[in-house]
Amino acid sequence: MVDLNCDYGESFGAYSFGHEELLLQYVTSVNIACGFHAGDPHTMHEAVMQAMDAGTAIGAHPGLPDRLGFGRREMAVSTQEVYDLTLYQIGALDAFVRVAGGKIRHVKPHGALYHMSERRVDIAEALVRAAKDYDERLIIYGQSGGLLLAEADKQSMRRASEVFADRFYMKDGTPMPRTTEGASLSNPKEALQQALAMVQRGVAFTPEGTEAAVQANTIYLHGDSPHVEIFASTLRQGLLAEGIRLAAPFAAPPKNMDDQ
Amino acid sequence: MVDLNCDYGESFGAYSFGHEELLLQYVTSVNIACGFHAGDPHTMHEAVMQAMDAGTAIGAHPGLPDRLGFGRREMAVSTQEVYDLTLYQIGALDAFVRVAGGKIRHVKPHGALYHMSERRVDIAEALVRAAKDYDERLIIYGQSGGLLLAEADKQSMRRASEVFADRFYMKDGTPMPRTTEGASLSNPKEALQQALAMVQRGVAFTPEGTEAAVQANTIYLHGDSPHVEIFASTLRQGLLAEGIRLAAPFAAPPKNMDDQ
Amino acid sequence: MVDLNCDYGESFGAYSFGHEELLLQYVTSVNIACGFHAGDPHTMHEAVMQAMDAGTAIGAHPGLPDRLGFGRREMAVSTQEVYDLTLYQIGALDAFVRVAGGKIRHVKPHGALYHMSERRVDIAEALVRAAKDYDERLIIYGQSGGLLLAEADKQSMRRASEVFADRFYMKDGTPMPRTTEGASLSNPKEALQQALAMVQRGVAFTPEGTEAAVQANTIYLHGDSPHVEIFASTLRQGLLAEGIRLAAPFAAPPKNMDDQ
Amino acid sequence: MVDLNCDYGESFGAYSFGHEELLLQYVTSVNIACGFHAGDPHTMHEAVMQAMDAGTAIGAHPGLPDRLGFGRREMAVSTQEVYDLTLYQIGALDAFVRVAGGKIRHVKPHGALYHMSERRVDIAEALVRAAKDYDERLIIYGQSGGLLLAEADKQSMRRASEVFADRFYMKDGTPMPRTTEGASLSNPKEALQQALAMVQRGVAFTPEGTEAAVQANTIYLHGDSPHVEIFASTLRQGLLAEGIRLAAPFAAPPKNMDDQ
Repeated sequence: MVDLNCDYGESFGAYSFGHEELLLQYVTSVNIACGFHAGDPHTMHEAVMQAMDAGTAIGAHPGLPDRLGFGRREMAVSTQEVYDLTLYQIGALDAFVRVAGGKIRHVKPHGALYHMSERRVDIAEALVRAAKDYDERLIIYGQSGGLLLAEADKQSMRRASEVFADRFYMKDGTPMPRTTEGASLSNPKEALQQALAMVQRGVAFTPEGTEAAVQANTIYLHGDSPHVEIFASTLRQGLLAEGIRLAAPFAAPPKNMDDQ
Repeated sequence: MVDLNCDYGESFGAYSFGHEELLLQYVTSVNIACGFHAGDPHTMHEAVMQAMDAGTAIGAHPGLPDRLGFGRREMAVSTQEVYDLTLYQIGALDAFVRVAGGKIRHVKPHGALYHMSERRVDIAEALVRAAKDYDERLIIYGQSGGLLLAEADKQSMRRASEVFADRFYMKDGTPMPRTTEGASLSNPKEALQQALAMVQRGVAFTPEGTEAAVQANTIYLHGDSPHVEIFASTLRQGLLAEGIRLAAPFAAPPKNMDDQ
Repeated sequence: MVDLNCDYGESFGAYSFGHEELLLQYVTSVNIACGFHAGDPHTMHEAVMQAMDAGTAIGAHPGLPDRLGFGRREMAVSTQEVYDLTLYQIGALDAFVRVAGGKIRHVKPHGALYHMSERRVDIAEALVRAAKDYDERLIIYGQSGGLLLAEADKQSMRRASEVFADRFYMKDGTPMPRTTEGASLSNPKEALQQALAMVQRGVAFTPEGTEAAVQANTIYLHGDSPHVEIFASTLRQGLLAEGIRLAAPFAAPPKNMDDQ
Repeated sequence: MVDLNCDYGESFGAYSFGHEELLLQYVTSVNIACGFHAGDPHTMHEAVMQAMDAGTAIGAHPGLPDRLGFGRREMAVSTQEVYDLTLYQIGALDAFVRVAGGKIRHVKPHGALYHMSERRVDIAEALVRAAKDYDERLIIYGQSGGLLLAEADKQSMRRASEVFADRFYMKDGTPMPRTTEGASLSNPKEALQQALAMVQRGVAFTPEGTEAAVQANTIYLHGDSPHVEIFASTLRQGLLAEGIRLAAPFAAPPKNMDDQ
């Protein structure tokens, strides 16, 4: 079983972003922007309704207070600031989710906040604690083998290990930076092969042709590439064709297993 | 019985605002800014903790998305925008309140949003509905005899009728605009006389020396005047001296009435 | 002779807006967003360089401080605020233009600021005065027959009368609101017919089939409709085919008229 | 001769900051915030008029786009972003200065941008280049012995070496970080002693009682400490009493030297 997640609700006012609306039918969970790096009250409301209609699990996608930089620029925020901005954003999103009759299932930090959480234990600690203080049933999405998941374990929070099917990995099991030349698997079929290796055998591909150990609870689908839909459908169909169940992490099993 | 309320948490980053910290000991409920016209995650966190420590009831104080104008400039927002921005701000504040073990008790719109709610039924409707959808036990603070309270009644929400002890009223029971020459009672003792008339007899003073009918469930204390503390203490002591119980609206009665 | 203008530089950070880049080759002047309703320092820098390369005249396109609403929501700003925000935005844009070796030629307010300038003399006065105080050679773009142009006349500023080729007009010579049913001429050829009537005969079309007097110094091309390019090329080719010279208002005549 | 400078115009909308208005009579140059970390069009307009009235030299005080953090949090901005945001802010401020009949004399980066400029050559290069491209007569204010001044030299820009009279220095001539325990000289008279040593002998004090070489073209006065005025008057009177002329860097000499 594996989850497919994508970012969602990253529009802002008159501005739309990427091709997220094309992805919704392929994923099993979405990370909804909460108004800091992207999103605004109306966009969040719409995104929540759409995700509820599509039946995907909903997670909060808190970001740094840097709309101009789309939350992608690291900032010297204190751990107290990380705690407070995470809590604020979870609460704001939860208002829309609760009113729609749903429930926030997970938290995945965005952009620079994600990267900072993977590099600094104190940032990871503050972020996980904010999620835990809000609702201890929240699931933390973090990088396979990374600090954020380790921190979730430490705080006894449930967590989902995230992998990137379209990215080569380094021998230590960490993904190559997206900006590195040759880091991406641009062919959807190759990405599917890696996704299957990740889910079925717990390994990712390195550029050298070797394998690196990863844990794949959830696969991230980019929404801002032009071929987003071919990629997503190839992955989804390919995984289902191999008999792999697609579902949000810790989702309740369907009442009738024959439906799967 | 009457409530004394003030705005709270209206700092922003390195900026502080008014003299709100002086008022906290005198009031029985606070309206905490939610990050739009004022406030930010850290300020809100601090404000919530301080209000919890002081034992005041906590309410959300949502404002228009206009930090530069401190939410005081009317904007052509749609009713959908009012609904969404109200819901967002309530949820964001509630995160801090819930984590602190408290509960948001009321909603009072700020500045231009308050005035727009008192002038346009559709704005009042959207605002009350957002509060109701979030939590139908929330209490709506609105102007004595005004549209917002009428809308709260219509939607079967509890409400508290707000008066200004330091402002003259017009014959129809509405307060004179703060900017009108001679609208303010600058002497704390006169304000106390009016407060007593409001609470005990349901009347306010007009500049002509007549009386106008009002309902006083809660008295608003300004935090941005220089004499804020003298005013607040005079009012509080004077009301208590007359045997008037000070408590947040719909507050549970104290276990031992002798404590009062 | 007539000018073709479009809005430009309306991206923000990671967000792009409309199809402005398709229009650049068709227009003779651009209104560049200045960082309030849209735009940011980097976007402005890029936009200025592109406009300089394309050889179009450059104007400032100041908007209200409401990025979330894209400057389209009216706000209760004071005339002093209008003066100050206009001056600020002109200066900010001019920095990029001057460094690129160019010159801001005109000012056209954006969205709600444009509409407010056409409805309130005091707003128009403040806006024109800010432009004049900055540089009295600036040209004011305003609606044909409107308040803004009248104010430009009053302050002895040069001005360009703007018309919309794809919009029906009312008998009084004002354009029908864009949101009115049937207000738009969706067929590019019809829009061209109206553009020719506007430029050659000084009349616009009404839905009733009559004509209304207008003055056409500059025709506005929308960048946010899907058929923007067909519309722009049809207009440009059609005007040139009729021997109408396309040039920014008050542009120096070409040295060799044979180049035209 | 030495300059006394302070930050100015750091209010924002309804928020005021520090005690800058008390300092204006003591300084010879002000660094006016430009709307990013602090300030807004109206505040800038007021600040410029006040500085013009007071006769101080006016400089731009560009900051990072982080109003919540007051520009004090370092951000991973690119050198292109530094160039663009510096140019934007200089231009915006210059609009008010030019309209008031004045001239921007210098540029001093604010907070984290100042610190980043002192630590990274590429940031310093971009910042100085933006100032130079705008107006090559601008004077760069930077830390005594630091990278920013070195870069100004490299780009043949005039510069003023800044010192802090109320701060101990390290042996290498750099000021101790403000947050370090014991870094500040809290006694105004001690600060004056150091100021005189800086101006007359080119040395600063270390906590160990030794001296470190510095160059003092301009002394910075903090506006956000409670004793700001005593400190400023002590410094000003003490310097004048020693026959030291107070003037902005590269200021034209007064027509009648007897006035000094």
